[in-house]
Amino acid sequence: MATRALSHELAEPLSDEDQVVQAMDDASPTKWHLAHTTWFFEAFVLSQFLPGYTRFDDRFEYCFNSYYESVGARHPRPFRGLLTRPSGDAVRAYRAYVDEALETLFSRELPDEAAALVELGINHEQQHQELLLTDILSLFASQPLKPAYRDAAPGEPAGTPDPLTFVDFDGGVFEVGHDGNGFSYDNEGPRHEQLIRPFKLANRCVTNAEWIAFIEDGGYETSALWLADGWNLINAEGWRAPLYYERAEDGYGQMELRGFRPVNPAAPVTHVSYYEADAFARWAGFRLPSEFEWEHASAGLAEQGRTLGSGFLRPQAAPDDAGLTQMFGDVWEWTASAYLPYPGYKPAPGAVGEYNGKFMCNQFVLKGGSCATPEGHIRRTYRNFFYPQQRWQFTGLRLAADA
Amino acid sequence: MATRALSHELAEPLSDEDQVVQAMDDASPTKWHLAHTTWFFEAFVLSQFLPGYTRFDDRFEYCFNSYYESVGARHPRPFRGLLTRPSGDAVRAYRAYVDEALETLFSRELPDEAAALVELGINHEQQHQELLLTDILSLFASQPLKPAYRDAAPGEPAGTPDPLTFVDFDGGVFEVGHDGNGFSYDNEGPRHEQLIRPFKLANRCVTNAEWIAFIEDGGYETSALWLADGWNLINAEGWRAPLYYERAEDGYGQMELRGFRPVNPAAPVTHVSYYEADAFARWAGFRLPSEFEWEHASAGLAEQGRTLGSGFLRPQAAPDDAGLTQMFGDVWEWTASAYLPYPGYKPAPGAVGEYNGKFMCNQFVLKGGSCATPEGHIRRTYRNFFYPQQRWQFTGLRLAADA
Amino acid sequence: MATRALSHELAEPLSDEDQVVQAMDDASPTKWHLAHTTWFFEAFVLSQFLPGYTRFDDRFEYCFNSYYESVGARHPRPFRGLLTRPSGDAVRAYRAYVDEALETLFSRELPDEAAALVELGINHEQQHQELLLTDILSLFASQPLKPAYRDAAPGEPAGTPDPLTFVDFDGGVFEVGHDGNGFSYDNEGPRHEQLIRPFKLANRCVTNAEWIAFIEDGGYETSALWLADGWNLINAEGWRAPLYYERAEDGYGQMELRGFRPVNPAAPVTHVSYYEADAFARWAGFRLPSEFEWEHASAGLAEQGRTLGSGFLRPQAAPDDAGLTQMFGDVWEWTASAYLPYPGYKPAPGAVGEYNGKFMCNQFVLKGGSCATPEGHIRRTYRNFFYPQQRWQFTGLRLAADA
Amino acid sequence: MATRALSHELAEPLSDEDQVVQAMDDASPTKWHLAHTTWFFEAFVLSQFLPGYTRFDDRFEYCFNSYYESVGARHPRPFRGLLTRPSGDAVRAYRAYVDEALETLFSRELPDEAAALVELGINHEQQHQELLLTDILSLFASQPLKPAYRDAAPGEPAGTPDPLTFVDFDGGVFEVGHDGNGFSYDNEGPRHEQLIRPFKLANRCVTNAEWIAFIEDGGYETSALWLADGWNLINAEGWRAPLYYERAEDGYGQMELRGFRPVNPAAPVTHVSYYEADAFARWAGFRLPSEFEWEHASAGLAEQGRTLGSGFLRPQAAPDDAGLTQMFGDVWEWTASAYLPYPGYKPAPGAVGEYNGKFMCNQFVLKGGSCATPEGHIRRTYRNFFYPQQRWQFTGLRLAADA
Repeated sequence: MATRALSHELAEPLSDEDQVVQAMDDASPTKWHLAHTTWFFEAFVLSQFLPGYTRFDDRFEYCFNSYYESVGARHPRPFRGLLTRPSGDAVRAYRAYVDEALETLFSRELPDEAAALVELGINHEQQHQELLLTDILSLFASQPLKPAYRDAAPGEPAGTPDPLTFVDFDGGVFEVGHDGNGFSYDNEGPRHEQLIRPFKLANRCVTNAEWIAFIEDGGYETSALWLADGWNLINAEGWRAPLYYERAEDGYGQMELRGFRPVNPAAPVTHVSYYEADAFARWAGFRLPSEFEWEHASAGLAEQGRTLGSGFLRPQAAPDDAGLTQMFGDVWEWTASAYLPYPGYKPAPGAVGEYNGKFMCNQFVLKGGSCATPEGHIRRTYRNFFYPQQRWQFTGLRLAADA
Repeated sequence: MATRALSHELAEPLSDEDQVVQAMDDASPTKWHLAHTTWFFEAFVLSQFLPGYTRFDDRFEYCFNSYYESVGARHPRPFRGLLTRPSGDAVRAYRAYVDEALETLFSRELPDEAAALVELGINHEQQHQELLLTDILSLFASQPLKPAYRDAAPGEPAGTPDPLTFVDFDGGVFEVGHDGNGFSYDNEGPRHEQLIRPFKLANRCVTNAEWIAFIEDGGYETSALWLADGWNLINAEGWRAPLYYERAEDGYGQMELRGFRPVNPAAPVTHVSYYEADAFARWAGFRLPSEFEWEHASAGLAEQGRTLGSGFLRPQAAPDDAGLTQMFGDVWEWTASAYLPYPGYKPAPGAVGEYNGKFMCNQFVLKGGSCATPEGHIRRTYRNFFYPQQRWQFTGLRLAADA
Repeated sequence: MATRALSHELAEPLSDEDQVVQAMDDASPTKWHLAHTTWFFEAFVLSQFLPGYTRFDDRFEYCFNSYYESVGARHPRPFRGLLTRPSGDAVRAYRAYVDEALETLFSRELPDEAAALVELGINHEQQHQELLLTDILSLFASQPLKPAYRDAAPGEPAGTPDPLTFVDFDGGVFEVGHDGNGFSYDNEGPRHEQLIRPFKLANRCVTNAEWIAFIEDGGYETSALWLADGWNLINAEGWRAPLYYERAEDGYGQMELRGFRPVNPAAPVTHVSYYEADAFARWAGFRLPSEFEWEHASAGLAEQGRTLGSGFLRPQAAPDDAGLTQMFGDVWEWTASAYLPYPGYKPAPGAVGEYNGKFMCNQFVLKGGSCATPEGHIRRTYRNFFYPQQRWQFTGLRLAADA
Repeated sequence: MATRALSHELAEPLSDEDQVVQAMDDASPTKWHLAHTTWFFEAFVLSQFLPGYTRFDDRFEYCFNSYYESVGARHPRPFRGLLTRPSGDAVRAYRAYVDEALETLFSRELPDEAAALVELGINHEQQHQELLLTDILSLFASQPLKPAYRDAAPGEPAGTPDPLTFVDFDGGVFEVGHDGNGFSYDNEGPRHEQLIRPFKLANRCVTNAEWIAFIEDGGYETSALWLADGWNLINAEGWRAPLYYERAEDGYGQMELRGFRPVNPAAPVTHVSYYEADAFARWAGFRLPSEFEWEHASAGLAEQGRTLGSGFLRPQAAPDDAGLTQMFGDVWEWTASAYLPYPGYKPAPGAVGEYNGKFMCNQFVLKGGSCATPEGHIRRTYRNFFYPQQRWQFTGLRLAADA
């Protein structure tokens, strides 16, 4: 219920107008997020496990199913922003209705399968909370008035970036992936062995200052730094900086959830695609880590950082600490690992089996969570995944090298 | 001020959510219509003729200029539906601010040029009132819940269509176009002579019953009936009926401003493109009238009919009257005339000269007004114009033939 | 047979490679032109009027039908350039086979209907001869080596353009259109009366020198000169000069059938779209003539000029003659008339009825023929038609004004 | 020189017309392949290592550079089929000129770097020989006459497929990748250790008979079998069978290099995409092997099979042998491995460094060679790579499973 309440809280600074519009195909309206996460509980939990449950409105399944082919036809994704009806009020009533039914359900003995689906529903809603924020940012960035979503915690003072150093790791055969104790998504397992070669990993993420040096060194104009698909893309689209960057009179500004602001040189660069991250690493003489290197390196670190609960709503400069910093929170870190199934991976039967497995192609794994990831939602085994051209999430990078 | 008030009245059944979204590139959000018509007065009247007038917000010109190239850059048309800011409240405040300034202006002696621009602004706002309704219909038709805009006057009982008869007209050289007494758009003049051959014109518009006969006779599958561009279009788009038609169990239904309703067989068919109107006429063994035939035939008829003030919000069956009926109101009637300048036409100097003249290519003239045309806005010389593929307006047709 | 032989002669400077490729959707390969004009005689003449005629290859109908829906399915236009088979040799054998059958047919008494279709077939092939040349130019212009099609007659020496003067014409009701004596296309009739107002027409076409003045005066950057559709187009496409123009070190060059050559300032500008012609006329303070003004003005002039037989293969500077010059040949002249049916127009029954009528929408009429029009193919009543954005034909313009 | 001569031999059954046209963006014209492989020797070998070498024609670098950004601008790939000039004769002269210069070069002492580039040039030309054949197939398949490229060796008689069995392999840490002795592409190394789990691999490739069972079981209509990107693709494109399959009266036919022929049920299915291969494996209850499993399993097998030299020009049914068959030749086998760099991979400096590395994103590895792979060109470490949607190569699959 805390997760359910957080969704409301995140929507509160937004008018009903703000909540209905969709700025691009990848993004969804706030209202749609609020309704879809509710439909998830209705379709996968209440309809099956609460005897006598009556759906709030049968037509909502068509409106708010996202991509579950086995559930049936659904409103096409690029047109989610046309749904002025059901209204914001109707969706809020839908949420209240489903929450009440969930309370009833929780007051009884839950079968294990139901409990697992409830846990999945909570984690699912947390994922949409992060999307809600990145999608609103894409909407506000598309508007001439460049509005702010809301005020944020003041954050670290802008300063010079911490020096870049590297932490060394030995090679060997190590276990990776989730061991099944506690919640995880199906794509995090099975736990299995990976052969990892000796490597080193940067103490912190790449900063805006470093990225601006890359821009000013002609990084976006040097074909030898780029994957062919990336080079074609940045030239077709005219990309010459991260998403939301705009050159201002005195340096760069960037649209963020607080509105348009000067770039903080010491903060991690964000809103970069895999192609850009990969080109930057090549320019810098390094490479991106594999997902297994990252996971192995994170062993022993607390799974916490400047995530959504910190209130910053934007990545913060690395703290002046020894060892690896910023591993959790701030920005999602692109890895060099294609998003593929782990050995022995089997999706769950039924519609929830469509959750992760069918996307295991053409995408890359990101690790560590961001400033928009809800508290408790991140794990070292967590495998986020996006297409190499996508950059509206809080995506950044950390350098690695062979030892 | 009555015109200004009517815009508010038309927006009243709509939530702020409904008012912000745009269902397709041709359509604009209600909020945009409300703001753009207001900006028109601000930019072309108040800024020039009210000394000391201060703009409500300088950024609104970028947001709400439609197509006036000489005014400067503007928010791209396909993205009008992204403008959740300025909010609905802000736009209503903008309207109140400009209305107050207009009242101030009207309390003084108006120079002729200013009075002419005010009259243009009123007529401009009336045009957008009709668009507001057709654009909301396109939005609601795109939604799975198929909402109604509002209740409407009950209308004529559904019945059998009146028999089709023809009225004969002699040929000759006749004057057409507006004579400059009273308001008209610049594209209605200069008044000039046209050579018209003897012709006959149908007593009423083509009905849904007749259109369904065309469908059932394979009209949409018979290439010989179609212009080549039309044939390519209907096959590429899969058009097999007017826009918003859907086959229901017992006949056809059509989305209208009252929601999804069974088609009234006796009412004029509407939401057809020029291509469809032209193919229908060929199928029926007739043709469309020229704009000059239509205008000549309408001489002596009162310029009134079932327009917006009738409250029907949809076209009505022809009354059982002798002679030409439905000439004004109900549906805009496609003519066979390409929209081109009249001999001696010169657009006004300055930005308002962009109002009509620059669109004189690739479009066709429509005559007579529709069920969504505000009272007093229609004239026999009025030249409405749309591209031959467009059909989200209340467009229909009336048959003609050589005598 | 002279017409049939001319097609071969036009193809002779081209290799089989040159003859098979298609540079853009609007254009067709030479081999396709050679085969399609042959198929026209086979399908519409020999199959009906030569008893016992056996088709050369039944599969060719699918390959070489252009747009006759009533004949059946056909190879899609954009893929005409993929037909390496049938080979060039096979198509030449097809032509010889059909020519022989035509000789047989001609040795007998021809029924009137057959004679009319033969005459149509000859005129049809002449149209494709002009297209063959403009399509080869589009292919060669697309190639890095910029080859020449062949040498051409030396032409007038480049000089200063003749001064622009105007010839005055009285108004009145005049007959226009073809009277049915001798061959004409169906779209040239019926002959009928038109009301023409007093007007004046330029003595010659607009020259390259005048067009360059338009460019240098910022014509392509001045929105007020342009129709809205034209303004959008030239900005989307980046048009800043006629097709095939390229800025060279000392002025402009243009790809022509002799290869890439310096622009002749005194020659008529060519390869301009309707949008550009219309904008130029507005910039110059004039307008384009209507098709009826042009036809009326041409009365009494010999229907001849620098057409294909002149051997120039490009437009020539106006001769230093009194009165109207360049009316026939050199460049097709855009008129301000939308391509629409004349009063009482009825297409022929059957497939040949698709020849002209179904294109009467969205196009504009051009008059007078060009340097690529075969001898004897042009008439004062001839109505050529193209879309306003097309400019790969030898299209130019002549100015007009109200008297 | 044998490789150079083979290119001529492959082009011989083709007319100059056949050699100039390009059927789709992925494919290139034969003439382009002949010229590009020649340019490769000119640009990377002769210009650097043959003193006094003069280029045949400086403009050819623009025409025939493929994707070497560091070499400079080049003719855009989708327009390769427009190059009727230089002519086929000119390109053959170009080849003779370069061959003669190569002979001169070979008559001298070659520095190691030159010898390595010559070897790369030979292997490069072999790759283009395979592409030449698959690209001609795509061209001929696009033509209504469905021509044959040439006759082929008669092949095994069509029969019932051999039963499917599996060969078991133990797990462990094994070395994979090329060890640097003899020629290999840079992407095959460095040789390194991989952890492989116990697995089993099918004795032969999936056959047409098995694929038709998949079709008839509704494989293309069952969303649960498909990756999301694949499901979207097959529905957008209407794919319901392998490329070139057409349903005939009595079963399926498929376009091949011998023209349109009935499908051989016992032969390996070919012209399937990764998406289809992956869906088939899921339907069959298996999976695709990783590239490392495939390479490990092939240890000890002779690197030979029904490749280009066999003269079949199409995949053949598996021989009735024990153990793994068809590992080399017949069809390229999709693996489940994303095409990514091996640990420690570094592309060569300079333009040849663009050969492989910049494509390491969004593609999958294929192993084993096909019926169109030149003799001696295949190795167990060879990593071919294509996008998951591509299927105009001779692509098939072999099933695998965890042991």
